[in-house]
Amino acid sequence: MPKEIALNAFAMNCIGHQSSGLWAHPRDRSRDYRKLSYWVEFAQLLERGKFDGLFLADVLGVYDVFGDGPEAALRHGAQIPANDPLLIISAMAHATRHLGFGVTVNLSYEEPYIFARRMSTLDHLTEGRIGWNVVTGYLDSAAKAMGRARQTAHDERYDIAEEFMEVVYKLWEGSWDDSAVLCDRERRIFTDPAKVRRIQHHGGHFDVDAIHLCEPSPQRTPLIYQAGTSPKGREFAAKHAECVFLSGPSQKAIAPRVADLRRLAPTFGRRPEDIKIFALMTVVLGATDAEARAKYDDYRRYATGEGALTLVSGWTGVDFAKFDPDEEVRHVTNEAGRTAMENITRADPDRTWTVRQVAEHVAIGGIGPIVVGTPAHVADALEDWIEATGIDGFNLAFAVAPETYLDIVDLLVPELQRRGRYKRDYRPGALREKLFDGSARAPVRHPAAAYRFRPYASAAE
Amino acid sequence: MPKEIALNAFAMNCIGHQSSGLWAHPRDRSRDYRKLSYWVEFAQLLERGKFDGLFLADVLGVYDVFGDGPEAALRHGAQIPANDPLLIISAMAHATRHLGFGVTVNLSYEEPYIFARRMSTLDHLTEGRIGWNVVTGYLDSAAKAMGRARQTAHDERYDIAEEFMEVVYKLWEGSWDDSAVLCDRERRIFTDPAKVRRIQHHGGHFDVDAIHLCEPSPQRTPLIYQAGTSPKGREFAAKHAECVFLSGPSQKAIAPRVADLRRLAPTFGRRPEDIKIFALMTVVLGATDAEARAKYDDYRRYATGEGALTLVSGWTGVDFAKFDPDEEVRHVTNEAGRTAMENITRADPDRTWTVRQVAEHVAIGGIGPIVVGTPAHVADALEDWIEATGIDGFNLAFAVAPETYLDIVDLLVPELQRRGRYKRDYRPGALREKLFDGSARAPVRHPAAAYRFRPYASAAE
Repeated sequence: MPKEIALNAFAMNCIGHQSSGLWAHPRDRSRDYRKLSYWVEFAQLLERGKFDGLFLADVLGVYDVFGDGPEAALRHGAQIPANDPLLIISAMAHATRHLGFGVTVNLSYEEPYIFARRMSTLDHLTEGRIGWNVVTGYLDSAAKAMGRARQTAHDERYDIAEEFMEVVYKLWEGSWDDSAVLCDRERRIFTDPAKVRRIQHHGGHFDVDAIHLCEPSPQRTPLIYQAGTSPKGREFAAKHAECVFLSGPSQKAIAPRVADLRRLAPTFGRRPEDIKIFALMTVVLGATDAEARAKYDDYRRYATGEGALTLVSGWTGVDFAKFDPDEEVRHVTNEAGRTAMENITRADPDRTWTVRQVAEHVAIGGIGPIVVGTPAHVADALEDWIEATGIDGFNLAFAVAPETYLDIVDLLVPELQRRGRYKRDYRPGALREKLFDGSARAPVRHPAAAYRFRPYASAAE
Repeated sequence: MPKEIALNAFAMNCIGHQSSGLWAHPRDRSRDYRKLSYWVEFAQLLERGKFDGLFLADVLGVYDVFGDGPEAALRHGAQIPANDPLLIISAMAHATRHLGFGVTVNLSYEEPYIFARRMSTLDHLTEGRIGWNVVTGYLDSAAKAMGRARQTAHDERYDIAEEFMEVVYKLWEGSWDDSAVLCDRERRIFTDPAKVRRIQHHGGHFDVDAIHLCEPSPQRTPLIYQAGTSPKGREFAAKHAECVFLSGPSQKAIAPRVADLRRLAPTFGRRPEDIKIFALMTVVLGATDAEARAKYDDYRRYATGEGALTLVSGWTGVDFAKFDPDEEVRHVTNEAGRTAMENITRADPDRTWTVRQVAEHVAIGGIGPIVVGTPAHVADALEDWIEATGIDGFNLAFAVAPETYLDIVDLLVPELQRRGRYKRDYRPGALREKLFDGSARAPVRHPAAAYRFRPYASAAE
C-alpha cells in the first residue's frame, strides 16, 4: 500500500504570509485575519478536507533589514501587522474535532514556567491537538523590542533552547503523576499531594523551583515541531522534533536534508520514522491545465518582488535593496543567510540565480516550489516528491486565502483519496496518536520521556 | 431614574475559585474548566443574563504559605491546578456578541512588547470587548518559579508596574496612527509607513525600541481593571483603573474605600465617575426564603475551612496553620496581610473574629458577603449596597457553578429589570462604550491618552 500523504496548511495571523502582495487580489480574504469568523471558517474548511493540521507561523519583530528600515515591510504588509497566534486557537478548536494546531512560539523571550502553562492549557482545551513549533527567532528588531542591542548569537540561542526544553519537559512530564488528581467527592480530596512534586532546575540559563500549574493534559508534552536548517538546528530537530518543516524550491534541495535528519535521529536514540517531515509547497489548481495556468497568471499580477526581497532580507540578515536586480546572488555573508540562499539556489546547481529571479520565485509561496495544474497533475507531483525525497507530507502555503485551500479540499483531496494516498477519515485520539498511530504521550525514545514522574508501563510503547 | 447596577461574573480557569471545597458538590461543574464547552456555555449564559462582563482571576504560583508547603492547596484544589485565562477567551468571544472579558495578567513576569500584542490581538478578536486586570502578584512561590529567591518588594512592584503601563500605553496608543493601514488594493500599499513610528522607551526597568506589532484595535488600550487595596495600589487604581474591584464583607468595609478612590481620582486629572467600582458578592437565590436557606445550608456542608485558610494564608503571607482555631485574628504582621485582614475584620468593628470565624466566612465566596434569599430580598440588598457605598455594581462569585449564575439569570435579573435597575439590552460598541457610554478609546483624562500618536478631535470626548 502506498504511503499516506500528510497535509498541513501553513498560515500566520497576518495578511498574505508567504505570498507577497497577494493580499491585494480581489478574492483574497486574509485581511480578515483580525476576525474570529475568518479563522473558524478556515479551520472548518481544513477539517472538511481532513488536513492533519494548521501550522501557524509567527515572527516577533519587523522585517527591517531591507533598505535598513521598516518602510518596505509596512508598505507591502510583509508579515506586519502580525497578531498573536496562540489566541485564535480556542475558537478554532471549539469549531472542530480533529484538526491539529502546530503553533510557533519563539522561546527566546519566554519564561518557561509561564510558557509551559500556556501549552498545557491549549493541550487541555484542544483535547490533545496542540503542537509547538520551537523557534529562536532571527530578527534583531525583536531583540531591540526586548531591551537588548541585538539577538543572542545563533549557536548560543540553541544552547539556551536546549536548556529551555529540559525545563519545560520537567514541568510537563515530571511534576504531576497521571493519578495525582483524584477529584474524590466523597473524601473531599481533589489532588493527592504525594503525587505532585516541585521540579528543581538549576541551570546556566534558568532557575525553576516550582510545581507545574496544570494537571496532566492529554499529550503532556505538545507535539514538537521544528524548522531549523543550520547544523545546530538540524541536531536540535533530530533530537527533539516529531514534525520537521523544510523549505526549498526543489527535490534536490530537500532530499539531502531529509536523509541527513533520518541519519541523525538514531544518534539520539530515536528511529528515523519518529520524525514526520513536511516540505513547503504551494499548489494552484484548475479543472484543466489551461484553467490552472490562467489562475496562476492572474495571481502573478499581484506579486511584488520588493515585498519578497523584504522577507528574504529578514531571513538572511542581508540587505537585498543594495543589489542590482540583475546581479547574481552570491553576496550572502552570514551563515543563516548562506543556508537560506543555498536552499533556493541549489535547486538547480547548473543555473545561476539573479536577485530578480530570487524575488520572483519567493513572491508566491516563499522558498517552496509552486505546482500548477489539474488535480491529477498536482497529485502526481506530490507522489513524486514523496518518493524522491523521503518526506511524509506537505506544508501547503496559500497564494490567495482561503481560495487555495478551497481548491485543495474540493479538487486535490478527492484525487489523492482515489489513489489511496490520503486518509478518508481521521484516526481517533490526540494529535500525536493521529500522526504516529501510537500513544498520546511522547514515545520512550523521545527526550521528554526521560523526565517522567515515573515510568509508564513500557510494553505499550 | 435609579442608577443601573452593573454585573460581572467572577471566575477563574480552575475548580472552585472563591468557594473552598464546593467543587465536591454534586451539581458543581467547575471540574470541566479544562473543556471549551464549559466556558462557551458559561459565556452564553452570562450574555443571556446581560452581564456586563466575565471577570477572570488568575494567580501564578501555589498557595504554599499555609502549613509551609503546597499540600493543603493541592488537597483542597485551592486555585491549583490553574490554567491560563487568556486562552479560553476566543472561543467564548466567538459564541457571544456583547459580553466583556476582564482578564487578570500579572505584569511582573511579562515582556511588555509581547504582552501588548496579546492584548491587542484579543481586542481585535473580541471586537473591543477586552479588559485587563492589572496585578503584580503576591506569592513568593511564583517568584521561585521564575528564578528569583522571592518576589520584588511590594512598593517596588508598583514602581515597575507604573513604568510597564507607560510602555504598553506607548505601544497601544502611540505607534500606529488610526489612518496608518490603507489596505489600498489599487496602489498596492497596505500600510503608510509615514503613519507608523517606533516607540523609544528607555527607563529604569524597560528598554523598548520597537514598532507595535499590531494595527490599532477597537479600544487600543484595553479597559483597565485593578483590585489593589494597599496605599500604593489605591493610587495606582485612582490613576489608571477604569474598573475597580473591591473585596470586603460589609458596606462598612467597602464604603470608605469607594470614597477614597473617588476623592483620589481628581488628583490625577480624572473625574470620580471615570471609575466604575465593583464589589465582590455571592448570592444564593430561591423562590422562597426557606428554599434559598435550604440551598445555602446544603452548599455549606461542602465548605472547607482549611481550604479557605489556605487561600487567606496566601493572600496575607501569614501561615494560619500555626494558630488555634479559636484564637482571635491579630497576628498579621505584614502590610498586605493587615490590609486583607482589616478588609474582613472591620466589617463589624464591635465584634472580634477568631481564626475559625474567618475560615467560615471566607469558605463561600471569599472575603465578600453572602446574601441568601428571594429575588426581591437579594435585589433589595444590591440596591442598598449601591446607595450605601457608592459602588456601581458587583463582581458575583459562585458557590456552585454554573448553578449560581443560572439562578441569577433566571431569578435575580428579571427582578432588577422590573425595578428599572438593570439594562434590558446591551449598548452597542466596545466594552468601554458599553460601560461608560462614551468612546471606545480611553478618555483624554486617562493617562493612556498622553501617549497618542496624535490627538483625536477632542470635541467627541
